[in-house]
Amino acid sequence: MSKHLLDELFHPRSIAVVGASARMGRGPTFFHAIYAFGFKGQLYPVNPKHDEVFGIKAYPRVKDIPGDVDYVISSVPASQVLAMIADCAEKGVKVIHLFTARFSETGRKEATDLEQEILRQARKAGIRLIGPNCMGLYFPEAGISFRDDLPKESGPIGVISQSGSAIMDIVELAGKNNLRFSTAISYGNALDFNECDYLEYLEQDPNTKIILMYIEGVRDGKRFFDILRRTTATKPVIIVKGGRGESGTRATASHTASLAGSMTVWNMAVKQAGAVSARHLEELADTAAAFHYLKPAYNRRVGVAGGAGGSSVLAADLCEEAGLNVIPLPMEIREELKAQGSEIWDWISNPADMSIRIDRSEGPGEILKAMAKNPNFDLLIAFIHAHGPGGNRDGSAKAFLQQYYLDELNNKPLLAVIEDQTGSENIIGDFISELNKSNVPVYMSIERAALAARKMIDYWRNKRS
Amino acid sequence: MSKHLLDELFHPRSIAVVGASARMGRGPTFFHAIYAFGFKGQLYPVNPKHDEVFGIKAYPRVKDIPGDVDYVISSVPASQVLAMIADCAEKGVKVIHLFTARFSETGRKEATDLEQEILRQARKAGIRLIGPNCMGLYFPEAGISFRDDLPKESGPIGVISQSGSAIMDIVELAGKNNLRFSTAISYGNALDFNECDYLEYLEQDPNTKIILMYIEGVRDGKRFFDILRRTTATKPVIIVKGGRGESGTRATASHTASLAGSMTVWNMAVKQAGAVSARHLEELADTAAAFHYLKPAYNRRVGVAGGAGGSSVLAADLCEEAGLNVIPLPMEIREELKAQGSEIWDWISNPADMSIRIDRSEGPGEILKAMAKNPNFDLLIAFIHAHGPGGNRDGSAKAFLQQYYLDELNNKPLLAVIEDQTGSENIIGDFISELNKSNVPVYMSIERAALAARKMIDYWRNKRS
Repeated sequence: MSKHLLDELFHPRSIAVVGASARMGRGPTFFHAIYAFGFKGQLYPVNPKHDEVFGIKAYPRVKDIPGDVDYVISSVPASQVLAMIADCAEKGVKVIHLFTARFSETGRKEATDLEQEILRQARKAGIRLIGPNCMGLYFPEAGISFRDDLPKESGPIGVISQSGSAIMDIVELAGKNNLRFSTAISYGNALDFNECDYLEYLEQDPNTKIILMYIEGVRDGKRFFDILRRTTATKPVIIVKGGRGESGTRATASHTASLAGSMTVWNMAVKQAGAVSARHLEELADTAAAFHYLKPAYNRRVGVAGGAGGSSVLAADLCEEAGLNVIPLPMEIREELKAQGSEIWDWISNPADMSIRIDRSEGPGEILKAMAKNPNFDLLIAFIHAHGPGGNRDGSAKAFLQQYYLDELNNKPLLAVIEDQTGSENIIGDFISELNKSNVPVYMSIERAALAARKMIDYWRNKRS
Repeated sequence: MSKHLLDELFHPRSIAVVGASARMGRGPTFFHAIYAFGFKGQLYPVNPKHDEVFGIKAYPRVKDIPGDVDYVISSVPASQVLAMIADCAEKGVKVIHLFTARFSETGRKEATDLEQEILRQARKAGIRLIGPNCMGLYFPEAGISFRDDLPKESGPIGVISQSGSAIMDIVELAGKNNLRFSTAISYGNALDFNECDYLEYLEQDPNTKIILMYIEGVRDGKRFFDILRRTTATKPVIIVKGGRGESGTRATASHTASLAGSMTVWNMAVKQAGAVSARHLEELADTAAAFHYLKPAYNRRVGVAGGAGGSSVLAADLCEEAGLNVIPLPMEIREELKAQGSEIWDWISNPADMSIRIDRSEGPGEILKAMAKNPNFDLLIAFIHAHGPGGNRDGSAKAFLQQYYLDELNNKPLLAVIEDQTGSENIIGDFISELNKSNVPVYMSIERAALAARKMIDYWRNKRS
């Protein structure tokens, strides 16, 4: 398969930032972000008011740049875009990312007309457009980013989002489980390239294994769902739809000029295309972590251990409400406990309540180990404590994993829920990282873990059927 | 009104801990907890194996104690309880908290029979029972606690829970919004005193303003819902029901021997009694914070500001899905923005998207101020950043509150959602504390804020109608 056009455009040899600013203002300063992030190609600030920006020689206009320019980032006002495109045409620029906003999303006729004129002029010049009204590209492989504080290492998660702030939220939320990204594209009003193109690119991108989307509306539903169906055959796609209700629909219009459409039709189409829906970005990130760390599961029989008393009861309720099947503890596990001399072998159940466990054979690790070996369970959820030792707490994540059940888990998905969340974020973060290294995604509540697991299972079931 | 019997029992002059241990084992050591927490009355360890426990003279049996004993905590095995009750009867003990478990919750006949015999013997001796199979009392006013690391200062929140671990979770989760507690009672199998008695006590307790319950099943539905209806007339009651589904019902049986009953009937009865339901302990704590900090609201028209792009669109969706009414921005606010010279006065909406705001008059604080003054809004939700200054971040919570809208908010509830959650927990904690001091509850997601607000409004609407 030949490479997607976007693959070429996302690997520019040179980038010019038009409207480059040396100020560290309250808004995004693209030049500083891309400069500090470490773009390896040639970087040109363009600004008639400056001789240099961050010590790099600046040019008044794009056409004044001596070398070739592949990629242009525009943060000039809307009124200056047409003139800039004329310059870019002269210079042989391949693609322009228009951070510039105030076009169709304002709802004003003259702004919408200008947007259309920009498209016409760009087409005439053979220049492709990302945006307008968007943050553009976060592509760590090529050293391109709209923020210098995003992770510099790449990973297998691709993101397509009509909102730039959603990308920052997704990177932060998924980062809690140490997920990293191949490409994240904020595409705003989708004047030229739209969600179909970006999805097709990520479908073909060998570095992208899981695709996350935040989408407010699609331009061409038929084409989008065709590509989506094709994509989900090889990669999970998880979608948050923004603009589901009356007020959200109103908000999408002013955010990216999207028309939201009927949610019933949308939900059905997403499901039929084999993609997974999430309600918000936290759920999107939670589900991504499940797909990233866990082997496929095709059934919903969950074993839960490590909670005490009320936690266990609510775990049962919340797992069941998330669509998991909290089966009774198989008799052979009770028999095993009995053989090991447990006094409470007929009391231990699923969820395995730890409030009155009395010796090692009834501890959460031992129960999980028995559940991991038992073919009646498709997946496991463990409550664990980040702050050990002492009390009924489990010490470090590593000790917990090594001591109890790591070997047995090689073939069964395990999700962890952290019970004690107070204390320093570093302790929690280190603890999560240790578990992540053993392919255990970590959640801050049983509900979040159960929903992520359910969504993952739905994808694999759907794919197999 | 005369004081409730429990009020007297919860103010003992002396406590004996039977089975007091000097070990700091993995299970709870009641003697250490109550000793370290700082009980001000006379404290007696009882244990035939020790001469002293933590430097305090120990006695072999309760009847060997020289002074009066009002309150006994039992952590001896189930088989020793009857003998201990005989001792307590001789000594004139008023109440025994049975941490001791392995009774009816095991599902075994002999254990259930023993439990009933204990009740008979206690009744004969005029001794009241808390539990068995429970953590008992956290009552900071009297210096009684089952853990020494719970807050020592009192507050207006009362908790009744069949699960002791649920109390620890509630104290931790509600503590994030700096809520403190009047009384929290873990009551397990409810052999003698049950949820009705505890609720009646908290109804009458002048220090308790909001009541939280974790309940797995009620013994006497008629009496319970009568007391609940009476209580909600003066205090909000928020209830999490454990054991809602098939597996949860199974779990309640082995946890506290509760019969869960039909959820349809339960939900209707809770609603008719004017109480508020929550799905899990996080939602319970979130809702408690809304009741604690916010003045009553009777309608659902919400104004949202401070989110950028996708956050704003999803905020609209999630508020609407939580049952709030995200009304369009009133024309008079747009007119005001226009009069102040805003270029985008006709673009700013509700939620007020901050992604392209250009000057102060369109900032989140100014928009919130306008919403606060406008009679069309019943409540407000603000997205804010804990890490300032720089970028579009808002600096400290105090500066944000002072600069923008504190005065105008005296009569309108405001909930805050923290957008940037990475970084040290201390920074986030300090930030939340500042907002709490201005009666702003803080949430980690818009969904949580919206659900808490909705539940609060439901209570006040229901009470008024």
